[in-house]
This record gives sequence, structure tokens and C-alpha cells, in this order.
Amino acid sequence: MERREFLRLGLPVATALAGLACARRQSAPAAHASSTVTVRWRLATSWPPNLPVFDHAPHRLAELLSAMSGGRFILEVDPATKHKAPFGVFDLVRNGTYDMAHTAAYYWKGKDPAMALLTTVPFGMNVWEQYAWFYYGGGLELMEKAFRPHGLLSFPAGNTGVQMGGWFRKEIRSVADFKGLKIRIPGLGGEVLARLGAEPITLPAGELYTALEKRVIDAVEWVSPGIDLLMGFQEIAEYYYLGWHEPAAELQYLVNRRRFEELPEDLRAMLLVAMKETALDTTSEFYMRNIEGLETLRTKYPRVQLRRFPEEVLAELKQQTQALLQEYAQRSPLFAEIWQHQQRFLQRARQWTEISEQYYLTIR
Amino acid sequence: MERREFLRLGLPVATALAGLACARRQSAPAAHASSTVTVRWRLATSWPPNLPVFDHAPHRLAELLSAMSGGRFILEVDPATKHKAPFGVFDLVRNGTYDMAHTAAYYWKGKDPAMALLTTVPFGMNVWEQYAWFYYGGGLELMEKAFRPHGLLSFPAGNTGVQMGGWFRKEIRSVADFKGLKIRIPGLGGEVLARLGAEPITLPAGELYTALEKRVIDAVEWVSPGIDLLMGFQEIAEYYYLGWHEPAAELQYLVNRRRFEELPEDLRAMLLVAMKETALDTTSEFYMRNIEGLETLRTKYPRVQLRRFPEEVLAELKQQTQALLQEYAQRSPLFAEIWQHQQRFLQRARQWTEISEQYYLTIR
Repeated sequence: MERREFLRLGLPVATALAGLACARRQSAPAAHASSTVTVRWRLATSWPPNLPVFDHAPHRLAELLSAMSGGRFILEVDPATKHKAPFGVFDLVRNGTYDMAHTAAYYWKGKDPAMALLTTVPFGMNVWEQYAWFYYGGGLELMEKAFRPHGLLSFPAGNTGVQMGGWFRKEIRSVADFKGLKIRIPGLGGEVLARLGAEPITLPAGELYTALEKRVIDAVEWVSPGIDLLMGFQEIAEYYYLGWHEPAAELQYLVNRRRFEELPEDLRAMLLVAMKETALDTTSEFYMRNIEGLETLRTKYPRVQLRRFPEEVLAELKQQTQALLQEYAQRSPLFAEIWQHQQRFLQRARQWTEISEQYYLTIR
Repeated sequence: MERREFLRLGLPVATALAGLACARRQSAPAAHASSTVTVRWRLATSWPPNLPVFDHAPHRLAELLSAMSGGRFILEVDPATKHKAPFGVFDLVRNGTYDMAHTAAYYWKGKDPAMALLTTVPFGMNVWEQYAWFYYGGGLELMEKAFRPHGLLSFPAGNTGVQMGGWFRKEIRSVADFKGLKIRIPGLGGEVLARLGAEPITLPAGELYTALEKRVIDAVEWVSPGIDLLMGFQEIAEYYYLGWHEPAAELQYLVNRRRFEELPEDLRAMLLVAMKETALDTTSEFYMRNIEGLETLRTKYPRVQLRRFPEEVLAELKQQTQALLQEYAQRSPLFAEIWQHQQRFLQRARQWTEISEQYYLTIR
């Protein structure tokens, strides 16, 4: 790829960004200068203002842009408590009320179920497989294809790592135990559990603790130890199940495409580089928080039992996941395209993962 | 942390960079402007000009800096074939011949054995544990402490992931098979094998194939499938062993500290952000290359057998690794400090890894 191509950050942006892989020449003096205009952008998050780790990336992004641009690129970050539409930021960015958002792609599966595949897939890729897929395996190009019709650009924004399977007040011994189980769990995971007879329920975060305590719900899936303990679930639920449905949930920067194209070249480059920096930073922070959270759980709440779902349950979850994904593939051509691409990639990728990361963890 | 602290990127730099974690406020218009000076820096790599993946990060860095600065920050990248000192870039950067280098910290264990701990440790942390340690667990601060006396700064620069245990012409059935075995393997891994009776040997890359073919050496450890196949080892060695000694080799940016401090604030910020961006990018690229390399190996070279070292061998490797690290800790206070820090961290971190990543990979 020629350097000018990148500088333009012409479309497809994703390809240009990934394609820097091809650059092998020395830098020559640039034919363009840095801009002198000051840009003030607004970013909407899907999170409350004090949600740890989640709201770190956009604030870090603002700091990095300000420092790199000498104050020419100002990013104001509004939490969901301000704009009142945590799951409406897609439209807020599309219609230009905000320039960008920090959120997650699977919130937009109402627009097209394919969006769910761009966050994480039950029994799917782990974090490094997914970053390899995004940056070097064709993932960014498919993400661009998904959001282009909406006038939006989408970029990885940090990964939660493996999320836990949820807090349960009753032990799960068999598939039958899911029958009628009221559980807060969103997305594909919730739809899979529904196929097992569970009742996935949506409740505002602020009502979850009380609902679980008063047995309005029987279980709640949230994130992982680094985040969950702040909700207090460990005080009322005895079983904390290991994860299967969100092995690598990647957060998302949504960007208004027209606004992005209007940015001066240098600021556009800063935005792309800083978004990717925050992805590594946020993923590292999630890992650290989970290490600390698990430690706190084990030392301060020994009553909580970490459990694996029985083999029989896992087998059923896996089978129903495949059935669900196949149904979606029949309904949405975009879903079919992305899912098939991911499946082919994972078939190859897992062979390397098995003899490297997976094997290594068993011998160290 | 106050924003001004970061903008200064005053020392400790590592803390300032990691400490952005604390930033939670909205960006305010900056009190400083972007610089107008043009800076021309030179970077020396430890790699030949055509070594895939390895030399990607510095070239990507040059592109990003040029694009973000509007051509004001020019980075010239020299491969080892130009400066002729692949393992001498430490001194070239210290004495100001170069402004920075792309290399690996364990090459500097002659300066202090502690440097080896800042790349990877046999049976030690995996990639995400290590990034959590670097960015949120105190690792960057220890790295800064290690390089400060030399007038240098050091930053993560991309990770190879789990490296393979090496190519062997004879099967390894027991510890006794290492007796007198001539093997190309550097660093701590080589020293551990020496304790098992092997003869670790250093040879230039260009001589390795012939040495292995002519049985001057019996085995060669290099990197992993994405890189190794280019060397041709698969044509002459039947056994390719799974890894234990470099579970997460992090490459390194070495920076002349005085030059860094002389940079205008905005360019300093660009350098820090772009270095970290390339770490994520390079690690993703290594993962992709290994996926492809393993696939090529399995389809085109079915004669090559992927093998695990026997349990008995692994137990001995682990025991000798511990003995070696303890010896170093007695000789170097800095080694002792960093190793103890890493051990404490890993004891905590592996508990999370076990119930998240490790468990997940067994059930998907």
C-alpha cells in the first residue's frame, strides 16, 4: 500500500489501517502539513459514568487526542446518564447528535443480527484469535461492510476477556434445571438459554440486586469478577458459573462516517491510532481487574462456589448455539457471510491455539 | 493523576503512561499548542531487513508518526544489515548514535540478568497476564527502573506469543536424550537445557540450516510456525516440539532518554501512543502468521511430527528453571526484585486464567 493511501485514510478505512502491514519503506518527508484547525467532538458512551474499566477507553482516548494534537482535537465524553439513551447511541451517532460512541456492536442486532457476531460468539474465538481476525484476518473489512449502510464506521475498543456464565441461587445439575429459570442475560447467550427453557429477562442494572435478592429472578449474568463484585451478587448468590457465551466481548467505537471524513488528515490518523491503543490498554485493564476481583471473591466470600456447567449442559448449550446461528444465517445474508467467515477462520486458528496457548497453560 | 502530568510525560514516564487509567474527567482545552519543529529520528532494529513480522512494528511506527504529525516527526528505520550490530543496539542508543531501537530486552542480560525477565520467563506469564502486569501490575515501573541507570527508556513492542520448543532430528524420550545434544537456543531456555547436559550453541541465522542439515547441530530453537518455515527446518528435522521456555516473548522499543525528553510535548505523546498501538498490531500479526504457518506445515509437510516433551522432561525443565532463576536472584538484586514481583503477580493471575481462558479453551 502506498503511504498516500493511508494518509488519505480513504475508504475502505479498515483495509487502509490494517494494510499498514504492507508498509516496508522508510518514511519520507510528508507532502502535507499538520492542520491548524481545532475540532471539538462529542462521544456518547453506553455506560453509567462510574462503571469501572468500561468507561476508561473513551476518557483515555480524549486524553491521548488532546496531548497528541496540542489541544486541537477536543473530545467531550458524555455518559449514558447524560444523553439518557445507553442503547440508542447508534442512532445518536448516525443522525449526528454525537460524533462517535463507545459501546458494543451486539446492541445493534435489532438493525441486523450480524452485528452480534462483531462482539463475541458463544463457543467462538478467544481474544487473540479475534484480534488476529479483526486486524489480519479480514474482520475489519467485514465490520466496515456491516456499518457502511448506516453511515457509520466501527472499530475495536477493548475486550472484556472471557465473561463468566452468571450468578445462580440454585445449582445447575442438568439441562432440566434451566426449565422456567428466570435469568438476566442479553444477546445470543440469552437466546440459547431460552431454547433450553429458561426465561431471559431484561432489567435495568440498578434493579438487578433487589430482583435477585427477592427471587424475582433466579440468576443473573453480568460480566466477570473485576466488575461483578461491585454489584453485590456475591452476597446473595452461592454459585458462580464459568463462562461459555462471551469468550471475548470486544467493545466498539462507533463513528459518524461523514464527520470522520471531514477531519483533517493528521487528526484522522491520531483518532485511528489512539482508538487502537485504548483497545490494548482496556483489555489489559480488564485482565488486571479480574485477577483482583477473583482474589477478593476467594478471600472475602468463601461461601461462593465457582462451578462448571455439567458436560451434558455444555453439550446442549453448544448444540443450541449452532442451531440458533444457523437460523440467523438463513434470515440475514450478512450474518451468513460473517459467520461463515468466522467459522472458517476459527477452524484454522484453533489448531494453533491448541498447541500454543492451550497446551502451554497445562504444563506451566 | 492530573492531565498536565501526562502532557509533560515527566518521569516516571511509565507511571504517567499507565496512570492515564486514573483520568476520568472530560478533556479541557489544552494550555499548550502543537509544536512546529520537525524532528528526524533514527531507529535501529536487531533484525535483518526482510524478517517478517519482527520488523513490522518499527516501520508501522514510522508511518503512524508521520501521518499524525503531518510530517513533523520523521523516523528512519535501519535494519541490522546497515548498522552491523544486531546485538549492539543497546549501546548505539545509549551513546546517541541512534535515537531508538526495536529489539528485545533479554539480549541485554549481559548488562544485568534482570533484563531477561522483561521479555519472557520459562513457565512464566502468558501474553495477557504479561500485558496486565506491564500496564496495570507495576511492570512498566520495574522496566523503567532497570533501564534508567543506562540513560534509556524501554517500552513493550509486540509479542510473539508462545514460541515452539524447537526442531529436533532425533526424538526426545527422556532427560538423558539431552546429554551432549547440540542445540541452537539462546537466553534462559538455553541455560536450562545446559543444566540437563545439552550444549547450547550460538550461530548466525544464515548458518543454521546447513549446520542442522550436516548434523553439526542436532536441534534448533527458532520462533514458531509463522516464522520458522522460512528457514526450511521442516525439510530436515522430523520433530517439532511444543514450547515451554518463551511463553510470551515481548519485543522492546529502547529509547534514548535525553532525546525523548527533548521532544516537543505533542510528538512525545504521539511516540508513546504509537508504540503501544504497534504492540497490539504486531502481536495480532504474529498470531495470524502462526495460524497460517501451522496450516502450511500440516498440509505441505505431513512428515513433520508435532511432539510434546515427556512429562519427566517437563518436570526436570521446570525444576532446573527454578534453580537457575534462584541463582540469578542471588547474584542480582534487580533480578531478585523483578522476579519476586513477577512470581507474586503470576500466583494471583493464574487463578483467573485457569477459570477463564484455560477452562474456556477446553469446552468450546
